[in-house]
Amino acid sequence: MKPKLTIVKVGGAIVEDEKQLDRLLSDFAAIAGNKLLVHGGGRRATKVAAALGIENRMINGRRITDSSMLEVVTMVYGGLVNKNIVARLQARGVNALGLTGADMDVIRSHRRPPVVMTLPGQGADGAAQKAEVDFGFAGDVDCVDANRLNLLISSGVAPVMAPLTHDGAGHLLNTNADTIAAETAKALAAQYDVTLIYTFEKKGVLANPADAESVIPAITRADFNRHVANGTIAGGMIPKIENALAAVDAGVSSVIITLATAIDGRHGTVIRS
Amino acid sequence: MKPKLTIVKVGGAIVEDEKQLDRLLSDFAAIAGNKLLVHGGGRRATKVAAALGIENRMINGRRITDSSMLEVVTMVYGGLVNKNIVARLQARGVNALGLTGADMDVIRSHRRPPVVMTLPGQGADGAAQKAEVDFGFAGDVDCVDANRLNLLISSGVAPVMAPLTHDGAGHLLNTNADTIAAETAKALAAQYDVTLIYTFEKKGVLANPADAESVIPAITRADFNRHVANGTIAGGMIPKIENALAAVDAGVSSVIITLATAIDGRHGTVIRS
Repeated sequence: MKPKLTIVKVGGAIVEDEKQLDRLLSDFAAIAGNKLLVHGGGRRATKVAAALGIENRMINGRRITDSSMLEVVTMVYGGLVNKNIVARLQARGVNALGLTGADMDVIRSHRRPPVVMTLPGQGADGAAQKAEVDFGFAGDVDCVDANRLNLLISSGVAPVMAPLTHDGAGHLLNTNADTIAAETAKALAAQYDVTLIYTFEKKGVLANPADAESVIPAITRADFNRHVANGTIAGGMIPKIENALAAVDAGVSSVIITLATAIDGRHGTVIRS
Repeated sequence: MKPKLTIVKVGGAIVEDEKQLDRLLSDFAAIAGNKLLVHGGGRRATKVAAALGIENRMINGRRITDSSMLEVVTMVYGGLVNKNIVARLQARGVNALGLTGADMDVIRSHRRPPVVMTLPGQGADGAAQKAEVDFGFAGDVDCVDANRLNLLISSGVAPVMAPLTHDGAGHLLNTNADTIAAETAKALAAQYDVTLIYTFEKKGVLANPADAESVIPAITRADFNRHVANGTIAGGMIPKIENALAAVDAGVSSVIITLATAIDGRHGTVIRS
């Protein structure tokens, strides 16, 4: 039987809120056994960039990372957010270790090539137009080194991963925290019985968007197909759950979508095979 | 026979200079066997603080770290400087891992209590005056966990240490990089044959300050006492060499003071027992 490993992903909104972060870190500390935290920090990066007079450019909700913005996210994600979380977990008895993908070469990525995207209202007539978008120093994950992470985890260390990776040629790359969580979970699934918990602004995947209590307790691929066909699951939830199902297909035991105040594995929506 | 370990400390001036840092990192990569890098970053922190409109307060050459400045040094030392060095060492084949004292709890410190200092020209008559100075979130090192560092080093990892520690109660503290290098060297001396290299703006300790080539090749405690008595060693070099001799007394094999372009262990002034 493989040892258990819980991976928790927490986004920028929680990271920015002292009280919520405090509770999240206490709840994380209370998780028994092996664990790993992946954090965002986008809101804080946006604030620091603004204070430095650096323009924050987003396209379809994704940040354009030019060289100035790469410096900001390296400071905020790798330094400010990561090291404060590490210090606060140490105070709670968790042997935390902050990591970017460059540290011990745990996550390699490549710079995302320019992509053709549909942009709303870019034409002279205000209509949507296709355009080539260069996201700059944004990294798409190539591989996660499970052996090196395992060396740490099996020594009782709880890795705290910032959303930064590297290309192996000396360059850091801004990388989506959800992706880091999913790729890390998949890579460690061979050695661990992995539960991946995505914290979310709602109690889980809702059967009725107007009813915050209408959490669907479990979703398999067959359920997902049915929910999409009848319109229960739509919009941004579709790629989120597709990614969760892909992680399950790759050997992750379960993916849970839940509130940041309910990461004990007994709440939210479980995505499983 | 204990395995060899080389610890190199590099200051903020080199870290700020792309070409010099590039060369230093290549030279560091070329060092055979176990190695560990400690870096500063004060100049960059001062620049980022200024860009954020945060006042930089120094007393007798030491920074006052208020809560805003702590955020800046956490961003700059722990994020920007540390993670870029790590990525660039990885590109040179070094399995670097960035650490603050909070990571894996490797260095605990306590907040420095206010100290009474002599400040130049503070009185109404312009004369020196004594005053109590609170350095804010500045940490004085209590202990370095040699076993945890050894776990990493013996696995082929090269720790890259930022000048930040923690108090174990969730607070990061700004800590002098020279001190981190010395305390780490002392702590690891039981397990390793440690050479501690301090990079310096001169070729070594000079017999004649006016002659940049007049490097004293080696200094023992007896030599030091003689050099101080006859005035060859004076001013800021006295505490520097006293710290080096204290490291040697604590079991560090040798401490070398040398140019950042000459860290191969064959240049500069060797302080030894």
